[in-house]
Amino acid sequence: LSASLVQHVRRTIRRHGLIPAGSRVVVGLSGGSDSVALTLLLRELAPNMQFELAGLAHVNHQLRQTANRDEEFCRAFAERLALPILVARRNVKAVAEAQGFSVEDAARRLRYEFLERAASELGATRIAVGHTLDDQAETFLLKLLRGAGAAGLGAIYPCRDAVIRPVLEVTRDELREYLGAIGETWVEDETNADVSNPRNRVRHAVLPHLESALGLPARRAMARAAGLLGEDAQWLDELAADKLATLAAQTSSGLELDADQLRATPLPLARRVLLRALRSRANGREVGLEHVQTALDVLTGLCAGAEVPGSRVELRGKKLVLLQ
Amino acid sequence: LSASLVQHVRRTIRRHGLIPAGSRVVVGLSGGSDSVALTLLLRELAPNMQFELAGLAHVNHQLRQTANRDEEFCRAFAERLALPILVARRNVKAVAEAQGFSVEDAARRLRYEFLERAASELGATRIAVGHTLDDQAETFLLKLLRGAGAAGLGAIYPCRDAVIRPVLEVTRDELREYLGAIGETWVEDETNADVSNPRNRVRHAVLPHLESALGLPARRAMARAAGLLGEDAQWLDELAADKLATLAAQTSSGLELDADQLRATPLPLARRVLLRALRSRANGREVGLEHVQTALDVLTGLCAGAEVPGSRVELRGKKLVLLQ
Repeated sequence: LSASLVQHVRRTIRRHGLIPAGSRVVVGLSGGSDSVALTLLLRELAPNMQFELAGLAHVNHQLRQTANRDEEFCRAFAERLALPILVARRNVKAVAEAQGFSVEDAARRLRYEFLERAASELGATRIAVGHTLDDQAETFLLKLLRGAGAAGLGAIYPCRDAVIRPVLEVTRDELREYLGAIGETWVEDETNADVSNPRNRVRHAVLPHLESALGLPARRAMARAAGLLGEDAQWLDELAADKLATLAAQTSSGLELDADQLRATPLPLARRVLLRALRSRANGREVGLEHVQTALDVLTGLCAGAEVPGSRVELRGKKLVLLQ
Repeated sequence: LSASLVQHVRRTIRRHGLIPAGSRVVVGLSGGSDSVALTLLLRELAPNMQFELAGLAHVNHQLRQTANRDEEFCRAFAERLALPILVARRNVKAVAEAQGFSVEDAARRLRYEFLERAASELGATRIAVGHTLDDQAETFLLKLLRGAGAAGLGAIYPCRDAVIRPVLEVTRDELREYLGAIGETWVEDETNADVSNPRNRVRHAVLPHLESALGLPARRAMARAAGLLGEDAQWLDELAADKLATLAAQTSSGLELDADQLRATPLPLARRVLLRALRSRANGREVGLEHVQTALDVLTGLCAGAEVPGSRVELRGKKLVLLQ
């Protein structure tokens, strides 16, 4: 089992080109099973794949009773592995309140900010984080059920800038079996059992129910779909950005889009072009697919004009205009 | 309520251009709530939207005890509406056995074959069928859980050739409320309660559980995602067909694809190009995304050569070859 898990992670790294030879990698370590296993797997793979573990980085979010226990665990783990570790203490609640983010959002922002600083301090070119196939499936299902639709379904990506996710294609259970097999332990995040959190309900109730009702490996299937749809979405977004640049002009009355060209644009692309155009005018207000549909209805003459977040959309001659 | 439902269906028809003025429409009528409501809604919309109901078409699949009751119901319904009705009796089980299809597949094929014949006999240019938002959500979730992935997720389309689905954006419950409000009845298909059928488990257990666990309108969200992803998939498939035509050449050794061009093709497109190429060589054997990944691994040098359904894929110089 361990050998096949290591091979699977190696394949993920190679297929997605996550760690070029000569890289130095810092690992974001929470102390949970996923990041502990990630660290040990990368340590196994490093010599043969010609990269180096530069060290570990742990954020103490000061959110939970057990935050200090987790920090101690991570320090001891790093010492045993003879790896440098950088630790940041952040008052996530205070930051969330001060900047108007949810606690979850604030924690994520602080974490990635610190990981980048840690990478730079440790001379690392890659930042490995422990998202698994389970995280991919859970995120996908949550987004799907929240009505994200094509433009927002996205996915957790195997790499984005310097951040890489080498265990994205294996399950949490596989990682825990691996840790058990080599006699390693980890700390449990007791908040993962809190089912007032929708993600935890998806993890502990919805996905197990799906798998047992249909006898199908729902997690794996959803994670795979998420990965593929994420690739589609990234590429279509790039195409839409290019297209918008050729269609749009900022004038004194607002943002003007060439209506004939937009009508000649295939619908999947036209939707994303309009989403980008609407977002550029929305001053941070939320733009949804219903606003894109409204703009399309104006474009095709089904509707004379309509309010959208931050502007009004009208057809004026050969231009679809997002008014100031 | 009735008025808003009628408006919703009108909007679906207009947005997707389902029924051009002057069309004659035949409705596929099973006698169930969806197709009964579809018939009545189209009858309401016909004068104002300038199309005509050409008649009804019913297939007696001779599969269920109640098949003759359903046929009688449909004949009486047509008579009351003063619409012509064509009825076909088909021994679906015998056809399924003779041609090696599942009963479900055979029934679908026979139904659409007959609907086309009925359209031609009634001088109709459009064939309306009663798929609802529930069908869309159920199909999407089933395909997702079966691991269909991007290339196979697809969707039920609002129109394909002459077949149109005007109630695809409303729910079964909405159609039943409408029927109740105007005092109409329908026949129940008792096999819909059979939970040995995966679709019925999705309908009666999985989707209600999803909605109650998260307090979100899962059906609506999934149907919307399915519609949008279906549009993406259709367009990407067209692009892939064009791309394959420019990349591929049939030679005496097999199908040769230009490797450099394929490597320069964005991954979402390259996957679909390879899927098409592999399918063209598979002699009807099933080609999955794992075979596409294998071909990609050969293309990128992660793997020297591999067997795929119906052929062997190798990199020979500047060509990726699917060998005879």
